[in-house]
Amino acid sequence: MKNKPVSPDWIGVDWGTTHLRAWAMTKDGDCLAEVKSDRGMRGLAADEFETTLQDVIADWIHDRVVPVIICGMAGSRQGWVETHYASVPCPAVTAEMVFPKVSSPGISVSIIPGVMQKLPPDVMRGEETQIAGFLHLNPGFDGIVCLPGTHTKWVRISEGLISAFRTTMTGEIFDCLTRHTVLRHSTAGDGWDDDAFATAIGDAISRPERLATDLFSLRADSLLNATPPDVSRARLSGTLIGIELASVRSYWLGQSVTLIGAEQLCGLYAKALASQGVEVALSDGRKVTQAGLFAAFLSLKVPSA
Amino acid sequence: MKNKPVSPDWIGVDWGTTHLRAWAMTKDGDCLAEVKSDRGMRGLAADEFETTLQDVIADWIHDRVVPVIICGMAGSRQGWVETHYASVPCPAVTAEMVFPKVSSPGISVSIIPGVMQKLPPDVMRGEETQIAGFLHLNPGFDGIVCLPGTHTKWVRISEGLISAFRTTMTGEIFDCLTRHTVLRHSTAGDGWDDDAFATAIGDAISRPERLATDLFSLRADSLLNATPPDVSRARLSGTLIGIELASVRSYWLGQSVTLIGAEQLCGLYAKALASQGVEVALSDGRKVTQAGLFAAFLSLKVPSA
Repeated sequence: MKNKPVSPDWIGVDWGTTHLRAWAMTKDGDCLAEVKSDRGMRGLAADEFETTLQDVIADWIHDRVVPVIICGMAGSRQGWVETHYASVPCPAVTAEMVFPKVSSPGISVSIIPGVMQKLPPDVMRGEETQIAGFLHLNPGFDGIVCLPGTHTKWVRISEGLISAFRTTMTGEIFDCLTRHTVLRHSTAGDGWDDDAFATAIGDAISRPERLATDLFSLRADSLLNATPPDVSRARLSGTLIGIELASVRSYWLGQSVTLIGAEQLCGLYAKALASQGVEVALSDGRKVTQAGLFAAFLSLKVPSA
Repeated sequence: MKNKPVSPDWIGVDWGTTHLRAWAMTKDGDCLAEVKSDRGMRGLAADEFETTLQDVIADWIHDRVVPVIICGMAGSRQGWVETHYASVPCPAVTAEMVFPKVSSPGISVSIIPGVMQKLPPDVMRGEETQIAGFLHLNPGFDGIVCLPGTHTKWVRISEGLISAFRTTMTGEIFDCLTRHTVLRHSTAGDGWDDDAFATAIGDAISRPERLATDLFSLRADSLLNATPPDVSRARLSGTLIGIELASVRSYWLGQSVTLIGAEQLCGLYAKALASQGVEVALSDGRKVTQAGLFAAFLSLKVPSA
């Protein structure tokens, strides 16, 4: 690790399934340095989390105990310790964090719990921190937030609480269909066609019941009409995002929606929503994650060094 | 190869993506012997098909030229030779077969072409032979045939012709979701729950637009309520078959449907259709494939030995 020689007041970590990002932070919420690693939750046994963390943040630990605040899949059943879920309606981040035992004297670790919904059953881990950050940066916000990703979250915020949410697997299903099914022959590469995407969005929203036959049509169309993979790829994405919008219609119909996440993916959701007359705002994913970890830091009773 | 020492009048081969089955047949359509192999189209380069075939049928070739009639993915773009598609409306098997050059003097090879539909775009390879066999065994049939499988075909037969058809990827998508996505944690094993399947069928047919959120609910439900994998697995299958039925409603609503294929999978489709008040008949997949190859053999101008 060749990090800048910084002395953070605390460290924030977004520890997902495939990656982790750590930030050296000041007590005012400014970021001094960042480390990225591909040592995500998926590749680690429960007893490997602490040593992995120590490797990643070694240059930031000196002569006093530094609080480390973690969000994401590190708190899942397959993670470091399984944290509980707060149940909606609830604040995005509660003070009830989980403190795994650590052998290192230089850090104290807190893991942010997830959020659950009983009916319809749903869970989130990590996005609650982004929502907390968004609310920290936009106090008084009331309305709909959508966090596109491998699993996209649609979240209703009311009076500062998460009141309801739904998850779709659109990103993971797109990935899965383009890698592991016959559609991989028709959607190769990373090309794109905006018109095909827009048409597919409209078709899927108005006739979601045609999904099962629409998918194989992509393959047949490329065989019979030599449709380019760029078109098929965009059409598949539009079909799946359209089906998603049909599923969560009550979250966006007649609403404005704030999208939080990576720029490119949020751009697709923005186009899809705009085509349905929905007003869209964008918010940077990394910034709100940092702000959410900061909100958790502020809620923490920091042990005196 | 340890086959019975038989001398067939002709040989029928069902050469699919992952497997092939060859039958030693008499000129009256009786089966003398069978060989199964896992040397499907997917693992073979174009120049490996003839040697693979010769390996498989070596014991059946003696002192005269034996016609070999092949159906399935061996005729696809990734296969031995790409055969054309007959265009609906058309007979299931035409006499216009494709004859790849072979170096062996003991065989003459014919590959049965697929069938295509221009709008909505669709293709089949292999199922046309099963349909031909079904019509050979049930002359005068008029109505709907469904061939459940990795890719399920819904086929309208009218006046002895395939008049229209649709393909769904339900089997492949089920396989893909239970192997490659987060749902694998919730659907492990091969258990089953009939009630969960039936409920999911009804829900998906009546509200297909909820698919995108229903899928992740399976995962959340297993995390929050410890729902057993048997239930989640059956529910996922019911959801996907229900979405399929919603997509091809015009094929079964107010119709009776003949299911052709493997017993277990046809059983699921039979239950799903029966729950919608549809009358169902079953037809054995292997039997109709043999009969379809036989119908193709009868249509062939056999070269004199």
